[in-house]
Amino acid sequence: MPLPRFAIIVAGGTGTRMGAGRPKQFLKLQNEPVLLHTLRRFAAPALGVQRLVLVLPADQFDVWQELHAQYAPELQHEVVAGGATRWASVRQGLLQLGEQTEGVVAVHDGVRPLTPLSVIENTYAAAEQHGAAIAAVPPKDSVRGLSATGSYALDRSRLRLVQTPQCFELGLLRRAYQMPELPTFTDDASVVEDLHPIQLVQGDYCNIKITTPDDLLLAEALLRHT
Amino acid sequence: MPLPRFAIIVAGGTGTRMGAGRPKQFLKLQNEPVLLHTLRRFAAPALGVQRLVLVLPADQFDVWQELHAQYAPELQHEVVAGGATRWASVRQGLLQLGEQTEGVVAVHDGVRPLTPLSVIENTYAAAEQHGAAIAAVPPKDSVRGLSATGSYALDRSRLRLVQTPQCFELGLLRRAYQMPELPTFTDDASVVEDLHPIQLVQGDYCNIKITTPDDLLLAEALLRHT
Repeated sequence: MPLPRFAIIVAGGTGTRMGAGRPKQFLKLQNEPVLLHTLRRFAAPALGVQRLVLVLPADQFDVWQELHAQYAPELQHEVVAGGATRWASVRQGLLQLGEQTEGVVAVHDGVRPLTPLSVIENTYAAAEQHGAAIAAVPPKDSVRGLSATGSYALDRSRLRLVQTPQCFELGLLRRAYQMPELPTFTDDASVVEDLHPIQLVQGDYCNIKITTPDDLLLAEALLRHT
Repeated sequence: MPLPRFAIIVAGGTGTRMGAGRPKQFLKLQNEPVLLHTLRRFAAPALGVQRLVLVLPADQFDVWQELHAQYAPELQHEVVAGGATRWASVRQGLLQLGEQTEGVVAVHDGVRPLTPLSVIENTYAAAEQHGAAIAAVPPKDSVRGLSATGSYALDRSRLRLVQTPQCFELGLLRRAYQMPELPTFTDDASVVEDLHPIQLVQGDYCNIKITTPDDLLLAEALLRHT
């Protein structure tokens, strides 16, 4: 029997980098909030996700409740309050799944609204097989490392730019989140990697994260033309 | 007296990754070929570039001649035939500047049509001061390295994604291009770095390289809204 699938969507942004009046996850993308695009992807029946947990700053609950009622009252999900950091927010999402004894959980950025279903499916499937899997793409540009005296070329074929979803066997992710938070945690793979090797799955260059106004323009263009 | 400035624009693409009928540098961006946008940036009087050398596959000369006559007959530039690799093409561009005894030369991708003038100016200025300078931006995403057993997190604050322009003192770039070509050459910084430290200049996330149809969509969106 296949393991049950869960998803934790982390939407902690406050919109300061966007220069917009509202958090970036609530900005409109083709007439719907960015966050709703993201949730709809994970709610796609083909993925078979049983529980969809949205982690949101508590002071954004009211706005989200209105948006949800207005745009997608049929969309089933659970909302929990986030913490002060991304790490703390993911932990809150995990606590919400407390009674689950087994499964695979995807952690995904609320502001990645364009993730192809195939990438989500492949990342779940790889985590079901290997325990931990994340979506990533090779850099398109040359990459350099900074050194004391300047910079040096790195072999970009040996590097990957990390995206989400990042999928983990539920017990593994729980164990990882029982350890104290470190400043080196930039994503869930970095939280888990001391416990378990991280499988890389082919992501997609369209799987962009909306962090600047330009990103929103690109997302609009991608949705219009694909 | 300031050193004279030159620019080598390398446009070697054949369009296969674009899935388009023509090389990507000739595709239309706001009704003008991508390559023309790029050349116009470097021809901006404020930069004071004395010679603008375009390196193009020989079999694209006819098409470019027509486009140039149609869209920008006033644009002054020199066209030379490219080689089999990017390295060979840049070397051809350098040979075209053969009689110059001193100066600073920018090497730039023909398919980076949106480079802000400030980035070009700053890169020239840094090379005038330090001998070698390139535009680069910090990765927005987490970065992982591939290992024999999986992957490991890298500190992205110590990494930079490399763009162009890449500017060099003319004699330095000539010396670098007298060495044999290596498979590790991914850009001009990698050609030069054994001879001279590479200064990094703040690039721009809008300074994208047009390599896929999505990139062209983004470029359209960026030009419309900025």
